[in-house]
Amino acid sequence: MATVASGVVLREFNKPLTLEQAELPDPGPGALTVRVTHGGICGTDIHLHHGNLPIPVPVILGHEGIGVVEQLGEGVTTDFSGRELRVGDVVAWMSSIPCGKCHWCVIEGERTLCENRKVYGINQSFDVWPKLSGSWADHIYLQPGSTVFRLPDGVTPEQAIALGCAAPTAVHGVLDVVKVKAGDTVVVQGSGPVGLAAAMYAHFSGAAKVIIVGGPASRLELAKEIGVGDVHFDIFDDTTNEDRLKQILAETPSGYGADVVLECTGVPAAVAEGLEMARKNGRYLVLGQYTDRGTTPINPHVITKKQLQVYGSWTFGERHYERYLQLLPAMAQRFQLEKLVTAYPLTEANQAMSDMAEGRVMKPVLVNQ
Amino acid sequence: MATVASGVVLREFNKPLTLEQAELPDPGPGALTVRVTHGGICGTDIHLHHGNLPIPVPVILGHEGIGVVEQLGEGVTTDFSGRELRVGDVVAWMSSIPCGKCHWCVIEGERTLCENRKVYGINQSFDVWPKLSGSWADHIYLQPGSTVFRLPDGVTPEQAIALGCAAPTAVHGVLDVVKVKAGDTVVVQGSGPVGLAAAMYAHFSGAAKVIIVGGPASRLELAKEIGVGDVHFDIFDDTTNEDRLKQILAETPSGYGADVVLECTGVPAAVAEGLEMARKNGRYLVLGQYTDRGTTPINPHVITKKQLQVYGSWTFGERHYERYLQLLPAMAQRFQLEKLVTAYPLTEANQAMSDMAEGRVMKPVLVNQ
Amino acid sequence: MATVASGVVLREFNKPLTLEQAELPDPGPGALTVRVTHGGICGTDIHLHHGNLPIPVPVILGHEGIGVVEQLGEGVTTDFSGRELRVGDVVAWMSSIPCGKCHWCVIEGERTLCENRKVYGINQSFDVWPKLSGSWADHIYLQPGSTVFRLPDGVTPEQAIALGCAAPTAVHGVLDVVKVKAGDTVVVQGSGPVGLAAAMYAHFSGAAKVIIVGGPASRLELAKEIGVGDVHFDIFDDTTNEDRLKQILAETPSGYGADVVLECTGVPAAVAEGLEMARKNGRYLVLGQYTDRGTTPINPHVITKKQLQVYGSWTFGERHYERYLQLLPAMAQRFQLEKLVTAYPLTEANQAMSDMAEGRVMKPVLVNQ
Amino acid sequence: MATVASGVVLREFNKPLTLEQAELPDPGPGALTVRVTHGGICGTDIHLHHGNLPIPVPVILGHEGIGVVEQLGEGVTTDFSGRELRVGDVVAWMSSIPCGKCHWCVIEGERTLCENRKVYGINQSFDVWPKLSGSWADHIYLQPGSTVFRLPDGVTPEQAIALGCAAPTAVHGVLDVVKVKAGDTVVVQGSGPVGLAAAMYAHFSGAAKVIIVGGPASRLELAKEIGVGDVHFDIFDDTTNEDRLKQILAETPSGYGADVVLECTGVPAAVAEGLEMARKNGRYLVLGQYTDRGTTPINPHVITKKQLQVYGSWTFGERHYERYLQLLPAMAQRFQLEKLVTAYPLTEANQAMSDMAEGRVMKPVLVNQ
Repeated sequence: MATVASGVVLREFNKPLTLEQAELPDPGPGALTVRVTHGGICGTDIHLHHGNLPIPVPVILGHEGIGVVEQLGEGVTTDFSGRELRVGDVVAWMSSIPCGKCHWCVIEGERTLCENRKVYGINQSFDVWPKLSGSWADHIYLQPGSTVFRLPDGVTPEQAIALGCAAPTAVHGVLDVVKVKAGDTVVVQGSGPVGLAAAMYAHFSGAAKVIIVGGPASRLELAKEIGVGDVHFDIFDDTTNEDRLKQILAETPSGYGADVVLECTGVPAAVAEGLEMARKNGRYLVLGQYTDRGTTPINPHVITKKQLQVYGSWTFGERHYERYLQLLPAMAQRFQLEKLVTAYPLTEANQAMSDMAEGRVMKPVLVNQ
Repeated sequence: MATVASGVVLREFNKPLTLEQAELPDPGPGALTVRVTHGGICGTDIHLHHGNLPIPVPVILGHEGIGVVEQLGEGVTTDFSGRELRVGDVVAWMSSIPCGKCHWCVIEGERTLCENRKVYGINQSFDVWPKLSGSWADHIYLQPGSTVFRLPDGVTPEQAIALGCAAPTAVHGVLDVVKVKAGDTVVVQGSGPVGLAAAMYAHFSGAAKVIIVGGPASRLELAKEIGVGDVHFDIFDDTTNEDRLKQILAETPSGYGADVVLECTGVPAAVAEGLEMARKNGRYLVLGQYTDRGTTPINPHVITKKQLQVYGSWTFGERHYERYLQLLPAMAQRFQLEKLVTAYPLTEANQAMSDMAEGRVMKPVLVNQ
Repeated sequence: MATVASGVVLREFNKPLTLEQAELPDPGPGALTVRVTHGGICGTDIHLHHGNLPIPVPVILGHEGIGVVEQLGEGVTTDFSGRELRVGDVVAWMSSIPCGKCHWCVIEGERTLCENRKVYGINQSFDVWPKLSGSWADHIYLQPGSTVFRLPDGVTPEQAIALGCAAPTAVHGVLDVVKVKAGDTVVVQGSGPVGLAAAMYAHFSGAAKVIIVGGPASRLELAKEIGVGDVHFDIFDDTTNEDRLKQILAETPSGYGADVVLECTGVPAAVAEGLEMARKNGRYLVLGQYTDRGTTPINPHVITKKQLQVYGSWTFGERHYERYLQLLPAMAQRFQLEKLVTAYPLTEANQAMSDMAEGRVMKPVLVNQ
Repeated sequence: MATVASGVVLREFNKPLTLEQAELPDPGPGALTVRVTHGGICGTDIHLHHGNLPIPVPVILGHEGIGVVEQLGEGVTTDFSGRELRVGDVVAWMSSIPCGKCHWCVIEGERTLCENRKVYGINQSFDVWPKLSGSWADHIYLQPGSTVFRLPDGVTPEQAIALGCAAPTAVHGVLDVVKVKAGDTVVVQGSGPVGLAAAMYAHFSGAAKVIIVGGPASRLELAKEIGVGDVHFDIFDDTTNEDRLKQILAETPSGYGADVVLECTGVPAAVAEGLEMARKNGRYLVLGQYTDRGTTPINPHVITKKQLQVYGSWTFGERHYERYLQLLPAMAQRFQLEKLVTAYPLTEANQAMSDMAEGRVMKPVLVNQ
């Protein structure tokens, strides 16, 4: 008997999302179907809703998800790391499916740069079979080639969804690109999910001090509460930028500046400010500039004179997603991840979106248990 | 009997330089005196003359030099690489003496960032003993701690001075920082001495194609004449920036952009343009921004989205200077370096400066043989 | 009308190879058929013939090939770099097809380590459709997923086959792993095809001096004749190992040892010797140990005390094969590659094999024009 | 009034050490004198006592020390990181003084490789002024150029001496050379001070699992007790090497092997074993081979086939010593470092040495409070 599934559909930009139904197909060879229990809402979803990115509509949103395996297609016997996979297992899946064949996948080995990537909840239209291709739904159809992992032991779905795609994104940037080293003094610009995730991985990499520069105050309080960051600066307090810079530098060894600065704001102007926070011979990660918000005045003399290394890092691939899951049990033990989450039923997706947009919550999650 | 030496002194910014005399001391322990035969003029000297940098005056200018050993102080028996050093040997010396004791020298191992560096021709005043501390003179007193090398066999002083400090500066940036790899497609922005030196080291590193984007036409012609660059774009022709970018990309494999872009212009706006020339996952070197000319609009989204690596590289240290000399014989054999040089006597230093400032010559050199 | 193709088949280890026939299928979607003009013979083929590696028999040997496109399957319109592909084009193809889905392909991004790789001429049995899966044949069937490139302009098939798989293998090790830098002093251990290819890429990367330590004398003569290596040591002369080591060190800057040593011998004992040739803080590449020839006495204290970096590099992937082709025109212009080749008809494959095994030729190639 | 100081002198190899007196000079410019409170005993001291290394005798041993500033020479006003330094401050000092002028210091920037290094307690003879140049004494004279740091707040001298020179040695190898990354599975071979220090830095770098392979059982128990290592294998139990290898691999993700293996044994044969524990594309650090104990059979095919990266790391320099101190407060908070220490008075140095040699204690320290 066919399952009829419900999903939150974006039909028209800037209009309310609608809960719609579609029939869940039985999984073909290499595919599987999952009963989604948690679908995360991410800042990017706000941009998608506003039509800031070229996506097909209608589309079921949701590129972050946790759920329970319902049916396994022919040949699907293990998860990506080779562990046996069975109906009823709790799983997480990577949002994208790189093509594995293009220049970027094969020659560069940078699957994040694949131009043919399928992305659940973003470029898989609700009009196209199998329709159920986003996590803001009670079911999702995971196509062949999907990267699916059983959730590691000792981790709850709430903990796993708490950082959403910010976590593997930060794994990519912090661990693989800019490479925080034990003993480093690290500045994190931004205190949203990407900033908090980046700060956590900096802690995990043995940073001697993690300085978070963000806001509003409620987010910094939450960061402190769950143990993220050693020093916190609120960009909305009365301090001038010059004074704040002085105070930040005073927190670094000999006042030289941070070994590493992690930009996680999405605000272009943050980059020029952040370059001033890095020490000579320091490293700077431009991690937060996911949408094109235009130019900002930057002084390239600073890059030459300080011999800076400035790195960009774009989304994440399988290797980052796997490492995120490998680290998740220890992360969940060290930080109270679940405190980041605010749960909503699928029927309140519009409310969740507006709470997110207005900064009332850190991480809204559509829960369906 | 004491030698009275003559040097070109900058007494007052923006005023004509004057030829003045001072007595050449006998070298103390660890020091040596050199009869300077070639003192190079560099773009930085124009900035110094304009008072754009905080230097002491009066000062004998000249941070690039070749000469003949006149007297060796006690204990000076070899050059820096351990080869025997004798009166009459032709030598080159590094312009700076890092302190070897500060955080940057010891902890970072980046002697280029030493804040206590003595620099011949820049921060060693003519008022202070031994007075003769610049290469625009017939003699120079090289203090203990100077890095002096005998000129490699088969290289003339003209060839050695032809690129001046641009050569070891490019060694630092191109070979040690951004690391051009054999087969890379390389764009060089700028066709002055730094640009040409960077292009030469790109050729030497096995670049499959070196694309020079510079001007004016006379400089590009000279580059072609001596065999530097495979493709040349003149930024002063009638092409729009958009069209030029298209043409440049068309010269790269599959139109993806260059593997490496080397910025050697000193013009802030070049950085934003150059970032567009790099392929995704490409490398960008900010090598030319030696003076602070303020901010320029840059779009940091480009750095994130393309996953660029952007590096700054500042001046050079002993390891770069030594490698420059190791490569010099092969460089001189492959490119007609001497064609870059225009010779002037010491008495025409002012003329040489204005020819340089107005772009009439590539590399003016004060010759004293 | 069906084409009947001929190929050189290994049916039984250590027995003569036989020329056999099979029908060439029309290419299916994504596949193509090629009339092979040049099939290279490689040292590994000798090992295969002796049964030293676990391969299926019968098999048409030949993992190096150049040929002319005969038929293109549906959907095959371009080569791997996106250039239009037509019947009659001269092409080269990579010997292996990584699976693109395993841990090593996806997580590590090291397609050389793929455990599911199909390799033409090695693990594609003559008993299994499409049978014609080796280059020692007049035709080959290139399966979907093959990496095929049109030969670059200005390069002859003889030049392209002259180094065989040694060239992309050396690209991997020399350019991507151990990374020779312009100005480096490089020792190459071995003067077979891998050694010569490694030496060429060292030259191309701007090595200040390339020292080849190999033999027999005829191979070193050939190396000199085509311009490979600056200094040559014959390991079969009367010099003791100790004396040879002294002489080699005397060729390095200040006698400190080589910046980089490239092991290309396949003889385990060479590794211990080679570690002594590297300077402190130097790099050592173990490139030649393709077959398991057991242990050799090595002193690990040398690795600690000298702070060596020792790298292994295994075969090559698409990125190395592409770079090899990008560099091929310049390689062919600089070195007389064609002089390495000795041509044989397909019918004389056994003779070619024995000439190779006995060191009478550098690079035997089965030519079929 | 002159201070007469006492120190433990090695006069003759393999003979009992003697407690002798010498007058402590007032510190000259750039020097300082320290009342030593803690002098660590290290495995190297056993080797020195046996005459295995070429050192001058007589010599006061002791290259690890903590003490209290007694007198500051002219010009000594801050510690190496610029913090004010006063009489009575508790300090630690680096054992060596690199020359800062040789090829290795200047060109390579590897002060660990300096061939002119002075090393307290090793190559500074008791016969030569200022005689008091080892930490197994109640006073030490720290020469100009010494790298002295005030002990960080919140750390006791016992905690600081607990790992001795093993800690900065491991900083060098683990953080700077082989670079453990958060999420890595790490095998540590050896459970002496270097092994434990290496394991701690692996934990600090976010290792997902640290597997210690060492012995005897008492050392492993101590490791567990203070929280070092997640899994422990005793090389002295009844397991065969083959079985142990299987068990170790079973502890790694998918059984592929460890991301990083840290050799900290000093036993050559450990290297061959350890290479088998690394995954393909993994990293191997040869950290423990400080004395030349000759060759061991190693199969270089493993390095090629697995594409291993094998690194040597030799002692430590200022940058590693500084980072060790930066991390020390967090280390002391996370692990009960003081439990590693067994205290002895200076008069029982011989007993301490024999306890160390026979493995009865982890870290003997000569305490003088």
